[in-house]
Amino acid sequence: MRRGFGSDNHSGVSPEILEAIHNANIDHALAYGDDEYCQRAEQLFRECFGNDAKVYFVFNGTGANVLNIDAMCRSHEAVVCAETAHINVDECGAPQRVVGCRLLTVDTPDGKLTPELVEPRLHGFGFEHHSQPKAISITQSTELGTLYTIDEIKALASLAHSHNMYLHVDGARLANAAVALGCTFRQMTTDCGVDCLSFGGTKNGMLMGESVVLLNPKLDVEIKYRRKQMTQLCSKMRFVAAQYEAYLTAGLWRRNAEHSNRMAQLLYEALKEVPQAKVLYPVQVNSVFVQLPRKVWQALQQDYFFYDWNEARDEVRWMCSFDTTEQDIADFIKALKSRLAQFGY
Amino acid sequence: MRRGFGSDNHSGVSPEILEAIHNANIDHALAYGDDEYCQRAEQLFRECFGNDAKVYFVFNGTGANVLNIDAMCRSHEAVVCAETAHINVDECGAPQRVVGCRLLTVDTPDGKLTPELVEPRLHGFGFEHHSQPKAISITQSTELGTLYTIDEIKALASLAHSHNMYLHVDGARLANAAVALGCTFRQMTTDCGVDCLSFGGTKNGMLMGESVVLLNPKLDVEIKYRRKQMTQLCSKMRFVAAQYEAYLTAGLWRRNAEHSNRMAQLLYEALKEVPQAKVLYPVQVNSVFVQLPRKVWQALQQDYFFYDWNEARDEVRWMCSFDTTEQDIADFIKALKSRLAQFGY
Amino acid sequence: MRRGFGSDNHSGVSPEILEAIHNANIDHALAYGDDEYCQRAEQLFRECFGNDAKVYFVFNGTGANVLNIDAMCRSHEAVVCAETAHINVDECGAPQRVVGCRLLTVDTPDGKLTPELVEPRLHGFGFEHHSQPKAISITQSTELGTLYTIDEIKALASLAHSHNMYLHVDGARLANAAVALGCTFRQMTTDCGVDCLSFGGTKNGMLMGESVVLLNPKLDVEIKYRRKQMTQLCSKMRFVAAQYEAYLTAGLWRRNAEHSNRMAQLLYEALKEVPQAKVLYPVQVNSVFVQLPRKVWQALQQDYFFYDWNEARDEVRWMCSFDTTEQDIADFIKALKSRLAQFGY
Amino acid sequence: MRRGFGSDNHSGVSPEILEAIHNANIDHALAYGDDEYCQRAEQLFRECFGNDAKVYFVFNGTGANVLNIDAMCRSHEAVVCAETAHINVDECGAPQRVVGCRLLTVDTPDGKLTPELVEPRLHGFGFEHHSQPKAISITQSTELGTLYTIDEIKALASLAHSHNMYLHVDGARLANAAVALGCTFRQMTTDCGVDCLSFGGTKNGMLMGESVVLLNPKLDVEIKYRRKQMTQLCSKMRFVAAQYEAYLTAGLWRRNAEHSNRMAQLLYEALKEVPQAKVLYPVQVNSVFVQLPRKVWQALQQDYFFYDWNEARDEVRWMCSFDTTEQDIADFIKALKSRLAQFGY
Repeated sequence: MRRGFGSDNHSGVSPEILEAIHNANIDHALAYGDDEYCQRAEQLFRECFGNDAKVYFVFNGTGANVLNIDAMCRSHEAVVCAETAHINVDECGAPQRVVGCRLLTVDTPDGKLTPELVEPRLHGFGFEHHSQPKAISITQSTELGTLYTIDEIKALASLAHSHNMYLHVDGARLANAAVALGCTFRQMTTDCGVDCLSFGGTKNGMLMGESVVLLNPKLDVEIKYRRKQMTQLCSKMRFVAAQYEAYLTAGLWRRNAEHSNRMAQLLYEALKEVPQAKVLYPVQVNSVFVQLPRKVWQALQQDYFFYDWNEARDEVRWMCSFDTTEQDIADFIKALKSRLAQFGY
Repeated sequence: MRRGFGSDNHSGVSPEILEAIHNANIDHALAYGDDEYCQRAEQLFRECFGNDAKVYFVFNGTGANVLNIDAMCRSHEAVVCAETAHINVDECGAPQRVVGCRLLTVDTPDGKLTPELVEPRLHGFGFEHHSQPKAISITQSTELGTLYTIDEIKALASLAHSHNMYLHVDGARLANAAVALGCTFRQMTTDCGVDCLSFGGTKNGMLMGESVVLLNPKLDVEIKYRRKQMTQLCSKMRFVAAQYEAYLTAGLWRRNAEHSNRMAQLLYEALKEVPQAKVLYPVQVNSVFVQLPRKVWQALQQDYFFYDWNEARDEVRWMCSFDTTEQDIADFIKALKSRLAQFGY
Repeated sequence: MRRGFGSDNHSGVSPEILEAIHNANIDHALAYGDDEYCQRAEQLFRECFGNDAKVYFVFNGTGANVLNIDAMCRSHEAVVCAETAHINVDECGAPQRVVGCRLLTVDTPDGKLTPELVEPRLHGFGFEHHSQPKAISITQSTELGTLYTIDEIKALASLAHSHNMYLHVDGARLANAAVALGCTFRQMTTDCGVDCLSFGGTKNGMLMGESVVLLNPKLDVEIKYRRKQMTQLCSKMRFVAAQYEAYLTAGLWRRNAEHSNRMAQLLYEALKEVPQAKVLYPVQVNSVFVQLPRKVWQALQQDYFFYDWNEARDEVRWMCSFDTTEQDIADFIKALKSRLAQFGY
Repeated sequence: MRRGFGSDNHSGVSPEILEAIHNANIDHALAYGDDEYCQRAEQLFRECFGNDAKVYFVFNGTGANVLNIDAMCRSHEAVVCAETAHINVDECGAPQRVVGCRLLTVDTPDGKLTPELVEPRLHGFGFEHHSQPKAISITQSTELGTLYTIDEIKALASLAHSHNMYLHVDGARLANAAVALGCTFRQMTTDCGVDCLSFGGTKNGMLMGESVVLLNPKLDVEIKYRRKQMTQLCSKMRFVAAQYEAYLTAGLWRRNAEHSNRMAQLLYEALKEVPQAKVLYPVQVNSVFVQLPRKVWQALQQDYFFYDWNEARDEVRWMCSFDTTEQDIADFIKALKSRLAQFGY
């Protein structure tokens, strides 16, 4: 496979990121985060998310999500999330194993929670037979490529806090969301009352490395031990910090996300000429979900790698990346049309 | 801090490793290990450890050790290890939390288990009140810089197998051991009857990335799910695989390990002229453990970062790295002598 | 509180059970199950469930369910169950904490799974990002007082086995089900292909004590250690075994269950004259679920203890027990009518 | 087996306990602890342990110990205990699985911790690689039948508190200790600064049921959920409470413990005439540990059930119970002498 629409983690690394790694490769640095690279990156996080923000670097998105859940909940507590949430379906039960808590899932039309959808899950407080709801987790942008508005996030934060609960944001694609909403990271998180955040870079051009950002200082309790014990403490952490430093300065995160979002729009526009490809959700960030005749998408998978999202319903996901080119889009549309023609559409 | 003797993970990355990462940064690759880089690296592992070897890449040493323990043991079972083992003292209880099992620790004079030391732990088989011994874990080279001979490893494998148990090797510094013993990786592991291995590269010049190597095919059961669920599945895995590819070809692992071992010997030789520095264990790989007057080592920590190993006993650890220079050694000895003089020694 | 309809565990102990405990209180017996009482009880279980049945006594229903799940699943696997299942809503997340696995919940109209409802959950096999479906769990009789027919259980066993999965029955009220269906325990379980069973007695007149019954010998692996490690090993186990011996001989389980089922029918019949009380599910065993005006049920709770089942929908549960009397029913109906009159109905 | 010296849980139930169960078997009571029997028993606990004492009933000693550890520690923390502690060797790793924490074990000559023995374990505070010491756990009386004096307990509490740690007492045989020391429960626990307690009754004449007694109110946080989630919530809890009520009134606990202690003294006295039986520890409560020629103890096991305590060293344990008789002792000594004679001693 050389080029495709499988995932934004099928792409490689931004040159600026590799350069930052190269530049950090000087002499010795204390391991495990006690170095100048981490200090500089932490300062950048405070500039992005406010002075109370405390960052803990981890290896991957699952690590970031599980450590956030661990900061919010003990095992007898529960997290309300969308049925489609990555923490629910795509982490092989990591929250259950590592934290031991329950997830209270909610069916949604578009991957987004609303206060109305969450409220029926908020009962049984004080009843020892029931896991106690303690957090709401949303994904921004969602697993279905949709977006929460700032007001929608505020409403969920407000609901959470009114029940002495926390609001977590899985921000594996937070940059794509910020670009699409035209806002800063902070406006979408800290200023909305978000309590903690998984802030990813790997899907937007970093090599490896994610972060737990605690916005509510009450959550910052013994996290360093918890990170270590769940196997997420990196030794040569300067090489994660250096990536974030490059990512957060000179607008790299923004350029990459703008590009991938724009490529998805290009693809979406091109699909308007392809009536057999039914676009399923608003195309707000860098993914396009499409329903296609089965023979067509299965044949097209011989040309390009991409995931069927719901095989039974013939739904597939096409994901653009920071390195997707206009030519990639044109070639892909050509291949799609060719496969449609092959099957007589 | 610019140069020091704190740890072999305080050093940076071998240029060859960075170059391999750079070369792998082309176009797209499937995530999570299903790519050509991983395939090539896996083939190299088979060449190193035998055709039955199955490798699972992970992020760090704790991840590698815990996944190996998880492959060998269920929660009601136990791992016999040295009291000084990394899995016992330096992973903040990760095996207990993630696997839920017990560690049966053994006091040792030099960080090394022997059949005589292990046997008293092997009882209670079939008795439901006792955790069932299921694995022996050794570290090669040990946390105290000592080495198991090939025959010693064979004897422990034999003991383990005679009780239907497994033998695990924590090989965070396996390269240093291979160089010191003048043997191949395989002679020290597969050919000794070792069942599984944590094979590290980060301490010997890699950027980030460790591996679980299953030598006994019976252990290769549903590991991919277990790795994912314990948060150790890397998305852009090609960048771990590419590092191992560079590490295992053209003798890089050997050059780096030979160098760091040699630097430790230099340091050891120089210490012969410093009678106040009592070397504690045989200097077999890249570390030197020394007992020093308290005022001296505490003052020296102002010049160089290094760990006190046992504060109460005034024992410290000096670790050499692939990038330690002869000048580093000379400067360090000079500083040591200066601090000794300061306190009238 | 002296008499009520709160739960079948609000009642006390059958005299025959207390007598059996008294009779077992002679001299010494080995602890932890290695005694003649346990041997006799185990023989009775084999007579009830077939010669392959293996019983493990535990303390309570949560313990029985969690040990069964632990026998079927590892942490990266999943159990499909009804959203209303006791294991899902009423065990404060015990399966998640103790086993670490996921529950895949299914909305049902009446607490019952069907192959059609389960099948959409059976996908992602082999995909490491998804918890692997490994078991189906049903409750007989269900938490809503409904029943699976023998054919329905067979169909679910067949579905489970066709996917290399297991079928578990939570039989906290298995006796009530057997009486209602007019069949033996075995016809409902072993003969249907059920793999394992939580077989309760506490809700039907026992003092304390439940059991894990493994019908599929493949599941009988190291269970004794797992029971001990999850805190469910009883020391003076003869007193649990003696209860089961009394329960399973001379038809005690049947008499008690027939009685409580009959009392529920009496209550149901009496409610036909109370149009404001809308019965919600078929009354098949010993519970009656009713929708009532809010003021009425809340006032009635001052007369009798019972649970609101869904406060938002004004649904309550009235549960009959082995010691419910016809007079209890008559008094309760009288109180209900009085409360209705009070509020002008 | 009819009579023996295997364990104090091989004996049955005190008649007063059975009578209390019988008397509690009236009408209905709320399940899960919300009943008048529990209220009365809780009041008795406050009278025994002080007004701040909060009791949580559980099923067994493992449950009590694990719930106490769970109240004191999170998974990244550690409990210092004797190598011989029940929580270390006899619970099949329950603390590791259920709490996920480490136990830091200490070799002792007689099963007793001292400040001098504990202190070397109290280091690494604040270092994220090390499990953080958070509790000290002692057993009173110990697994070797020895006793802590009140001053010794105070010293350990003081040490614990000076490091912001807790002191837990495993009091499976607390009654035997109180009798031997001639003090109240409170003098040995609350008044010494003990933070929490596993207070058992099963080994001293109760049928089934143990308790977690929190003496430090800081520990009483969300315990009810934790108890439920670890499977230790009893439904018909009145029958546990009623046992404790009988146990704590009219001196039953004292009479039973005095008797079993006295029987052990009788046995000990009789052994003075048997020079081949070397008594190993001070006989302070109801057990006698003896070293005997292998052939003799193995033959004697054909006459009486008892445990070898350390087979390799030919050490066995003889345990007296509330129902051991003087005749039992006489018969046992006779059998011992007969076996000695058989082998020519």
